[in-house]
Amino acid sequence: MKEELSSTHFRILPYIHRTPVLTSQILNALTGADLYFKCENFQRMGAFKMRGALNAIMQLRPDQKQKGVVTHSSGNFAQALALAARSLEVPAFIVMPENAPQVKKEAVNAYGGIIVECAPTLQAREETAARIAADTGATFVHPSDDLSVILGQGTAAKELLELHPNLEYIVTPVGGGGLVAGSILAAQHYGTTCKVVGGEPETMDDAYRSVKSGQIESNLSGDTIADGLKTQLGKINFPIIQAGIAEIVRVSDQEIIAAMRLIWERMKIVVEASSAVALAAVLKRKEIFAGKKTGIILSGGNVDLSKLPF
Amino acid sequence: MKEELSSTHFRILPYIHRTPVLTSQILNALTGADLYFKCENFQRMGAFKMRGALNAIMQLRPDQKQKGVVTHSSGNFAQALALAARSLEVPAFIVMPENAPQVKKEAVNAYGGIIVECAPTLQAREETAARIAADTGATFVHPSDDLSVILGQGTAAKELLELHPNLEYIVTPVGGGGLVAGSILAAQHYGTTCKVVGGEPETMDDAYRSVKSGQIESNLSGDTIADGLKTQLGKINFPIIQAGIAEIVRVSDQEIIAAMRLIWERMKIVVEASSAVALAAVLKRKEIFAGKKTGIILSGGNVDLSKLPF
Repeated sequence: MKEELSSTHFRILPYIHRTPVLTSQILNALTGADLYFKCENFQRMGAFKMRGALNAIMQLRPDQKQKGVVTHSSGNFAQALALAARSLEVPAFIVMPENAPQVKKEAVNAYGGIIVECAPTLQAREETAARIAADTGATFVHPSDDLSVILGQGTAAKELLELHPNLEYIVTPVGGGGLVAGSILAAQHYGTTCKVVGGEPETMDDAYRSVKSGQIESNLSGDTIADGLKTQLGKINFPIIQAGIAEIVRVSDQEIIAAMRLIWERMKIVVEASSAVALAAVLKRKEIFAGKKTGIILSGGNVDLSKLPF
Repeated sequence: MKEELSSTHFRILPYIHRTPVLTSQILNALTGADLYFKCENFQRMGAFKMRGALNAIMQLRPDQKQKGVVTHSSGNFAQALALAARSLEVPAFIVMPENAPQVKKEAVNAYGGIIVECAPTLQAREETAARIAADTGATFVHPSDDLSVILGQGTAAKELLELHPNLEYIVTPVGGGGLVAGSILAAQHYGTTCKVVGGEPETMDDAYRSVKSGQIESNLSGDTIADGLKTQLGKINFPIIQAGIAEIVRVSDQEIIAAMRLIWERMKIVVEASSAVALAAVLKRKEIFAGKKTGIILSGGNVDLSKLPF
């Protein structure tokens, strides 16, 4: 996969920001670790998802590109696919539940996505996306369970390891599994002995349970402040995760909010709750990371400032 | 003053961060200007004030350093003087009104400052600081009306101009006058034809009125969200400002909050309300900055997350 990661990175590089890596003496002192924060909150459209969306579209044949892409998402991937598609002059159909927040619809719209509304159920979303694909010939792009997407997301960890090749750990949030799977591939091929640890909300611990049971488990009903992580692992990313993850650390919403607050107050940057799950995991299991050179992927910075948990 | 600025910068450089300069395509599009944000919110202790505090202490003789420094402030300068003093192994006495927020006292305490409480009046603060100076031999350092402090604050604009020598404007917030005066000196000596514009809250427009009348005017009673700017010009910085300022733009609290929100949402960084005054000024008077290469000093990022104006 090293060659695939390398060609993916080369392919998308003209369309992404090579985001900065920040350090914080105070957070090092608080955790006992030696932390390197990869700031994907500064990525275009505010999250790492831009990387995977670009790669998925760029892998299409010219005739496929002409017909466009379609996804169903109400989160960052919707915006990412819309902006990636616009950057590449490809149409993007975004299926969104009719009760999605107006602000999210406006963001997709501002990035040039063609919004198609549907009933607020997973079934309706899938059916609507399938119908659009059938009607228009657009290619369906899954937000996380797609190898092109996984490779794209892995380029964030690749960039981090290129700057700091001797990282001993990389910690990422775990939601749909694209970022953590891509980071595992990057750690295997660009790290020396770099292990990957996932952070996951206690109430959405499908990945923790899946790795334990050896099969894809579902999330039970529940909620979390880390709304970007309310998703399930998939058939393509699960085997990568199962084979390569060192550990999944589950954290409570309270721990996520505390970690988010630390990042905002101490590092003076805006990250979304899902991003703070990785630092929350480091704070919860300090013994793993004590004295270790540890990368943290800050996955995104798209927050609604009028609904902060502080 | 070029030599003084240069030696100031050389002197404090081991103790400060050379903060990054960020750009934003979206904010360029919104303002019509070509903006370069100097991120002093990433400075040590979270604000540019660290620069002036360090310079003031480093200029003291060894026997003066041994006796320490004293100031009265409840804001960023208190924390800056405490941390600068600790970095230089000098005692710092910080006079704070007894009703100052606990969080500010804790911050000064955490940076090693020796807090001396007094009644919440300017007179009590000045008297207490004078008494400490007399009792201990500590040197009084004014937060803004001190040439060493002004030169220290000017190093932020100097760094910005070293990266972007052909800036046509630098915009700073105006409070006590140290930052804007220092920036004027830097623009004169390190810019080519760089003009300095100040942003000031409408309700604290002493600088606007002072420049107009030719003498130092007082602020009337009033309030502003930009709490770092509730201060007056002084005898040392006023002549520099009067001689060198291109314009002072007054902005409302509503305009400050809107600018602050744009910086948080679009740039994904945390800045305090006082910092947003500069962008608010650019947004208010777009005709001045249209198409111009414009530096903005983001002065600091110390906010109370539980009291946001959004």
